[in-house]
Amino acid sequence: TRKSDIQLDDYVSGILDGDRSLLSRAITLVESTRPEHQELAQQILEQCLEKSDTTSFRLGITGTPGVGKSTFIDSFGHYLVEHGRKLAVLTIDPSSQISRGSILGDKTRMEKLSQDTRAYIRPSAAGSSLGGVARKTRESILLCEAAGFDTIIVETVGVGQSETAVRQLVDFFLLLLQPGAGDELQGIKRGIVEMADLLAVNKSDGKAVDLARQAQRAYRNAIHLMAPKASGWAVEVVRCSALKQEGLSDIWQLMLDFCTFTQANGSWAENRRDQARHWLHQSLTEHLQQLFYQHSAVQQALPAVEQAVTDGQLSPFRAANNLIRLFIETKA
Amino acid sequence: TRKSDIQLDDYVSGILDGDRSLLSRAITLVESTRPEHQELAQQILEQCLEKSDTTSFRLGITGTPGVGKSTFIDSFGHYLVEHGRKLAVLTIDPSSQISRGSILGDKTRMEKLSQDTRAYIRPSAAGSSLGGVARKTRESILLCEAAGFDTIIVETVGVGQSETAVRQLVDFFLLLLQPGAGDELQGIKRGIVEMADLLAVNKSDGKAVDLARQAQRAYRNAIHLMAPKASGWAVEVVRCSALKQEGLSDIWQLMLDFCTFTQANGSWAENRRDQARHWLHQSLTEHLQQLFYQHSAVQQALPAVEQAVTDGQLSPFRAANNLIRLFIETKA
Repeated sequence: TRKSDIQLDDYVSGILDGDRSLLSRAITLVESTRPEHQELAQQILEQCLEKSDTTSFRLGITGTPGVGKSTFIDSFGHYLVEHGRKLAVLTIDPSSQISRGSILGDKTRMEKLSQDTRAYIRPSAAGSSLGGVARKTRESILLCEAAGFDTIIVETVGVGQSETAVRQLVDFFLLLLQPGAGDELQGIKRGIVEMADLLAVNKSDGKAVDLARQAQRAYRNAIHLMAPKASGWAVEVVRCSALKQEGLSDIWQLMLDFCTFTQANGSWAENRRDQARHWLHQSLTEHLQQLFYQHSAVQQALPAVEQAVTDGQLSPFRAANNLIRLFIETKA
Repeated sequence: TRKSDIQLDDYVSGILDGDRSLLSRAITLVESTRPEHQELAQQILEQCLEKSDTTSFRLGITGTPGVGKSTFIDSFGHYLVEHGRKLAVLTIDPSSQISRGSILGDKTRMEKLSQDTRAYIRPSAAGSSLGGVARKTRESILLCEAAGFDTIIVETVGVGQSETAVRQLVDFFLLLLQPGAGDELQGIKRGIVEMADLLAVNKSDGKAVDLARQAQRAYRNAIHLMAPKASGWAVEVVRCSALKQEGLSDIWQLMLDFCTFTQANGSWAENRRDQARHWLHQSLTEHLQQLFYQHSAVQQALPAVEQAVTDGQLSPFRAANNLIRLFIETKA
C-alpha cells in the first residue's frame, strides 16, 4: 500500500489498535508542511481524540548538553517498561537557529531502549520555528496516547528556547544536573530551575559522588530561595546514576507521588486546562497568519511593501498598518 | 502641563531637540498598553523617523548573571561619553515568566553612569510577552536616535529568552564571560555564543588574570569550531576588567573596526534590512491578533469555546478552526 492509499478510517482504527507503523505515518503527516497532509492529520487527530481515553503521564526532561540525558532516558525508560509502563519518547529539537544543525539527531543515543520493542522512540522533525515544532510535538503526544502509550517522555535538547515550550506540553518537568557545585548554578538559567518539579544530579557514581553531593546541597539551597509552586508541590533535589541505574526507582516514586498529590488538590487538572488554553491561542495565531499571508491582495502587495521597508523608505509599523487595512478591506 | 496636554507636535519637536523629559514621556507612551497612548506613540514615532537622520551604533550586551554586566556598562559607558559619544542605555528584561519579579530592576546598578548627564539610562518596563518587550525596545531605540543619541546600548538580563530578540535589535552583539575554563562552556548556550560578534572575558584582574586567560583560550578554541559569520567578520575573544577600566579601548576599537568592515562589504546594511523585515512580520502578527480578539463575534463566542477546550470537550485545534471561520464569515 502506498502512503496516499491509506484512508482516514484505516489510520484511526490502526492507531487505536496500537499499530506503530500507522502511528509513525500519522506523526509524519503531522510533521508535514503539505496542506493535504495537514488536513488529513487534523482529521486523524480529532477522531483519535474522540475515541481514546488513555490517561497518560507526560514527562518533560531537560538538562545542559553533557549531563547525560540520553543515557538517563535509556536507563529510566528501561526501568519504566520493566515496570509495566507503555512508553513513548519524543524529542523536541528546534536546534540552533543559526547553524540549523541538529546537535544530536539519531536514536542510537538510546541504545538499550531503541532495541526494546516495548518502547516507542520518535525523534522530532526539524522545524523552522519553535512554536511549530512544539505544536507538532503536542499533536504527536496525543497520537501516542491514542495508540495506548500511558507514559510519554518529551526530551528537550536544552540548547535553545525549547524548555518553555516543553513546559506547556507536560505534566511534570525533570531537570538533570551535573555533579559539582558553585559556578554551574549560573549555567542553568534560573527560569528553567523554576519550571522544574524535580532536580536530579546525574552521574552520582564513582569518584563523582562527592561532587554530586555538593551539587545537591547547592541546588537545595537555591530552590529554597525560590517562590513555592502554585501546585503546592515541594521540589526536591535527588542524586542518581543513569549509568549504574541507581536512584531511578526513587525518581519514579516521586513522580507517582506528584501525580497523587496534584490530582488530589486539583492542580493536575488545572495545569492541563491552562495548557489547552495555551494551545488554543497558539493555534489561533498560526491560523491567522496563514489566512493573512494567503490572502490574494496581501500576496500581491507584500513584495513591494517589504522592499520599501528594507530600503528604509517605510517604517515597519506603518507598513504593517497599510497591509492590515488591505487585508480587511478587500475580499480574499 | 499634564501629560495629556502635550500635543503630537510638541513631542516631535522636543525629541528632535534632544529634550530628555519629552523623550522619556514618549517612551512611556510606547510602553503603555492604553490604545490612545499607543496611537499617539505611533504618530510620534512616524514623524520622528521622517525627520531624523541619526546614524547610530546599536550595541547589544549580554552575559550570565554575575558576569559583571552592570559594572561593565557603567565603565564602558563612561569611556564612550568621555570619547564624545552620545550614549543611551536601554535594558530589556522580560524576567522570569513564572516569578514575574525583575532580577535587577533599578538603575543604581550603574552608579557612575546614572549620575553622568551625558548619558541617558532607561530601564525597560516589564512586559507580559518577550515579543512585546522587544518591539517596545525597538521603538525606544528609534526615539533615542531621533533625540540625537548616536550610540545605543541594549542590555539583556540574560536569564530568559531575550538574547534572540535583542539580536534582532542591534548591529553588534557583545557576550561577556567569566574567568575560568571548562565547565562554564556548557553554561552559556551555544546559540548565544554563535550570535556574538565579540566575546570579552570580564574580571581579568588581580588573582583572576590566569583564570581569565584560561577562559580566553577555551573560548578561542570553541569559536574556532563554529561556522564563520555571514558578514565575514572574525569573532575575537578579548579580556577586560570593567572594575579597573582595562581593555575597554581595545573593545571599542574592535567595534569601530566592525563598523568599517561591515559597512564596506554591505553586511551592515543587509543586517538592518533583515531586521526591518523581521519587525514588519512581527508587527503584522500583533495587528492580526488585535483584529481577531477585538472582533465582536469572536469576543462573544470565545468564553464558551475556551471553556469547552479547557473542559476537554473540544480539541484546541478544532476550536481554533471554528473561531477562525466565525472571524471570516461575520463582519466585525
